[in-house]
Amino acid sequence: MFKHILVPVDGSINSFAALDKAVGLAGLTGAVVSILTIYRHHSLLEASLSMVRPQDPRRFDDVMREYAKEIAEKAKAHALAAGAAEVHAFVRNGAIARGIVAFAKDREVDLIVMGGRGVGSAENYMLGSISHKVASLTQRPVMIV
Amino acid sequence: MFKHILVPVDGSINSFAALDKAVGLAGLTGAVVSILTIYRHHSLLEASLSMVRPQDPRRFDDVMREYAKEIAEKAKAHALAAGAAEVHAFVRNGAIARGIVAFAKDREVDLIVMGGRGVGSAENYMLGSISHKVASLTQRPVMIV
Repeated sequence: MFKHILVPVDGSINSFAALDKAVGLAGLTGAVVSILTIYRHHSLLEASLSMVRPQDPRRFDDVMREYAKEIAEKAKAHALAAGAAEVHAFVRNGAIARGIVAFAKDREVDLIVMGGRGVGSAENYMLGSISHKVASLTQRPVMIV
Repeated sequence: MFKHILVPVDGSINSFAALDKAVGLAGLTGAVVSILTIYRHHSLLEASLSMVRPQDPRRFDDVMREYAKEIAEKAKAHALAAGAAEVHAFVRNGAIARGIVAFAKDREVDLIVMGGRGVGSAENYMLGSISHKVASLTQRPVMIV
């Protein structure tokens, strides 16, 4: 029924709840699980608005990439511990919703499982808006957990 | 993993595609499938805006209810033919998204599978907006097909 399930993971509790559902579905269907963590490019504008102004913007990007890698690897370990047979972790940068949709298309994903709505925090609100954006932009099934 | 899957069906091709996915998931998980068709109350305002002005608004409601029943029964037959073990069909009236969310809560549904985005027709656009509204209003997993 599903061969390739994509789970965008940002390190939040919601994204790990989505990962658990995806692992469960992978167990039932034999699907491969791909974990995708996307970080935004560091922009000079954002740097100029922040209290800390890094000397070298590229170094800031490196820090972001390392952090994203750490989240993706932690999620992969979590999925394997939960019983997933085959898990791959990916890190990308750029626009989050569009990056998820592009990855799903490139890799022929047949289900995207995402953390969704939450309990009203700003973080969860954003997550919800990303899952809605993904569902609007892709033709593939999206499960919002 | 899922015990009770709800599929709101409005008779559209998208809603039947969602039903097929739900039946597939029910086969894997042993879940019961509930089909829900919701029709809107006939309002006097809408009647006054329409070309046809029925003599008796309650009769108009009856026609809507019969049509909704027909859709729900057709969907139930479709699900059984597709191999679903246990299927129930329900008809309700009122606000569509809120009706779906209330049903899911009352019946302890653990997954809602809905037809989602389409190819740009007004009908599909509306469907998409309903699935987004449902995902925003419920705490339960929603799969948009």
